[in-house]
Amino acid sequence: MKTLINPKRENWPAILQRPTQTVENIEDTVNQIFIDVKRNGDKAISKYTALFDGVKLTNSVVTTEEINAAGSQISNELKLAISIAKQNIESFHVAQKTRKIQIETTPGVNCWQEKRPIQKVGLYIPGGTAPLFSTVLMLAIPAQIAGCKDIVLCSPPNKEGQIANEILYAAQLCGVTKIIKVGGIQAIAGLTFGTETIPKVYKIFGPGNQFVTVAKQLATKFNVAIDMPAGPSELLVFADDSAKASYVASDLLSQAEHGTDSQVVLVSTSKTLITNVETEIEKQICELQRLDIAKQAIANSKLIYVESNAVALDLINDYAPEHFIICSENETYFIDGIQNAGSVFIGNYTPESAGDYASGTNHTLPTNGFSKVYSGVNLDSFTKSITFQKITSEGLKNIGNTIELMAEAEGLQAHKNAVSIRLKDLK
Amino acid sequence: MKTLINPKRENWPAILQRPTQTVENIEDTVNQIFIDVKRNGDKAISKYTALFDGVKLTNSVVTTEEINAAGSQISNELKLAISIAKQNIESFHVAQKTRKIQIETTPGVNCWQEKRPIQKVGLYIPGGTAPLFSTVLMLAIPAQIAGCKDIVLCSPPNKEGQIANEILYAAQLCGVTKIIKVGGIQAIAGLTFGTETIPKVYKIFGPGNQFVTVAKQLATKFNVAIDMPAGPSELLVFADDSAKASYVASDLLSQAEHGTDSQVVLVSTSKTLITNVETEIEKQICELQRLDIAKQAIANSKLIYVESNAVALDLINDYAPEHFIICSENETYFIDGIQNAGSVFIGNYTPESAGDYASGTNHTLPTNGFSKVYSGVNLDSFTKSITFQKITSEGLKNIGNTIELMAEAEGLQAHKNAVSIRLKDLK
Repeated sequence: MKTLINPKRENWPAILQRPTQTVENIEDTVNQIFIDVKRNGDKAISKYTALFDGVKLTNSVVTTEEINAAGSQISNELKLAISIAKQNIESFHVAQKTRKIQIETTPGVNCWQEKRPIQKVGLYIPGGTAPLFSTVLMLAIPAQIAGCKDIVLCSPPNKEGQIANEILYAAQLCGVTKIIKVGGIQAIAGLTFGTETIPKVYKIFGPGNQFVTVAKQLATKFNVAIDMPAGPSELLVFADDSAKASYVASDLLSQAEHGTDSQVVLVSTSKTLITNVETEIEKQICELQRLDIAKQAIANSKLIYVESNAVALDLINDYAPEHFIICSENETYFIDGIQNAGSVFIGNYTPESAGDYASGTNHTLPTNGFSKVYSGVNLDSFTKSITFQKITSEGLKNIGNTIELMAEAEGLQAHKNAVSIRLKDLK
Repeated sequence: MKTLINPKRENWPAILQRPTQTVENIEDTVNQIFIDVKRNGDKAISKYTALFDGVKLTNSVVTTEEINAAGSQISNELKLAISIAKQNIESFHVAQKTRKIQIETTPGVNCWQEKRPIQKVGLYIPGGTAPLFSTVLMLAIPAQIAGCKDIVLCSPPNKEGQIANEILYAAQLCGVTKIIKVGGIQAIAGLTFGTETIPKVYKIFGPGNQFVTVAKQLATKFNVAIDMPAGPSELLVFADDSAKASYVASDLLSQAEHGTDSQVVLVSTSKTLITNVETEIEKQICELQRLDIAKQAIANSKLIYVESNAVALDLINDYAPEHFIICSENETYFIDGIQNAGSVFIGNYTPESAGDYASGTNHTLPTNGFSKVYSGVNLDSFTKSITFQKITSEGLKNIGNTIELMAEAEGLQAHKNAVSIRLKDLK
């Protein structure tokens, strides 16, 4: 941990710099696999699954039998927990539905905007030791609410050719239409080009390691959209004397266990709190299973003392955290003033893990300062809006001359003609 | 023009293929200019302005005097037209404002979503013979409504070191905060990295030639967002016997005059209409100033006869047009069924040029099939949504166990601890 007292404003960028990843040498590998999958489809997919996941699959599509078997392996207790989380995520995302927006901008000129679902979406769920089934909920639930027709989930198989039971169970619960055992670069390439087994989709969602991240970037070159650019997860806590040091420490540690490159920042107007949080972290960290990971992330963490809430807010907006916890006696100041953050957690009883799993908000959020410009995943991430206009003959008489004048000034005569030819008939 | 009668479904992709641009050799140039601008700032910018625009500028920031002088050069007639268009665009985009969405997902668990403006945006407006001041309205008006703080407009200077009067007039009218005489790749590089003169922005909007398009793509690698990927403009008209051939022809020609690579498609259930539209195009095209451009685009255009509205709708959704005109006695069928389109124009008195200038909808729209996944520019393009959650001690008691179970199942013990440590105190 590094404690900084009133750092100068010009040093903020250096202090809060994110770990940068060099992806140059990954790009070549990603490019090669994309070319191979585009050309050879499933044959290439199998090859890379054997190579990277160490398993030869005869059928990569998950069957109904496998899904049912997965369900029977999960405890009723966990099933109940998943269903409570699902309910909360569902109500929050259903509330995000918007109605048709319609106005008559000029008499006879009716304009409206409607949202329509993206027809085909791909959800990527990483494999590894811990099955991230919560991400299945976060992506599949809004996709289903939006009305996406094809919801394809890809996740790498383990050495036995299986996807974790929890992932399969969550996927069927949330309306995923096809589950495929494929991971890494080859999964993203498959969703981008389509193969005999993997449907081509219009937009790819989901987290992943740096190979998956670079593959998603490359996918955009082939006209596939992605949820957002990704980077290591991060948490910034603002806490003053109204906060409880042990809670703050537990939140910082929950971020630290994600990965060695996790970003953990505490900003405070209380030197006492900073000292107490440090002590608490040292106490709590020893008991963690993922101690090694947490230790490295904590070693790079920053505890920053600033003199006022105003300076704190400026620094936080500059940093644009993915997760932002506010434990302040003046929380309204921060709620109203925050301009750049993915998701905000307010008060002593709102740990980040609440939003990670079950409060109802989405946990797929912009990292790496991207909250300055990107939203986290939400219902709109699965729709696009279309505008409509219907003009009556009266309406065209009202705005026709305006269009003619502007088109002429832009030197676009045929644009003008399209109006003139109609107006002539209406005279 | 090529007329196709009942083309087979498997041939649709080939028939409706968009012109593909190879950008390989552009990429090197773009990369070089980016590196140079990043390293040398304004010095590099001046160099490229001299090289590409043929002018040496002592000051590239447009002054208040220049803006005032520009205003005095514009006719009152055109000023009135611009103000009417502005009013319509404004009312349609103000109507898109959304309120805070707030729900209590579980007793004591309050979640809400709020939109906040993107603080710094860059608007790119191409130069050239015809000043595209309508695009200034389409980008600056929603940026101002959203509440963006810095709205920076870049447009290339002409040989006299000037930006067109209409662009300057529209920019000041719509609240642009800084206008800079810089175009092409160097403008996008400047907005990406920031220079002594050009502010670094978070998101870049606006059309441009293929150099600008590739530069915008590259900008995303440096953590700048862009409005959407761009391609040549396109129009698809569906028309049956209720349509008027001369109107349809005028609409197709308005699209054709944009560029030689413009896409012009007519889909119809009436062979008579197709024939009549062909005749009308031949008649109307001769009178156009941009005859050469229109001729080439029309030569590549497709007139497609299909047997039913259902087949037509399938084909149109497959194509996903940027602009879609419906002139049908059964327009509701198409309005309800369209899944993929940028903006839709309904009836005989709604030419595309209405939306290009003055109906109120935005004319910055997804081309190249991107309407399958992207919205056109709208108010939300200038905001991002932030989620908030505030949980009471009662609320945490209600969902705490759910979080603990799920965190444990994902092997994230510190996530669980952040809840357990609080629940313990609440017992």
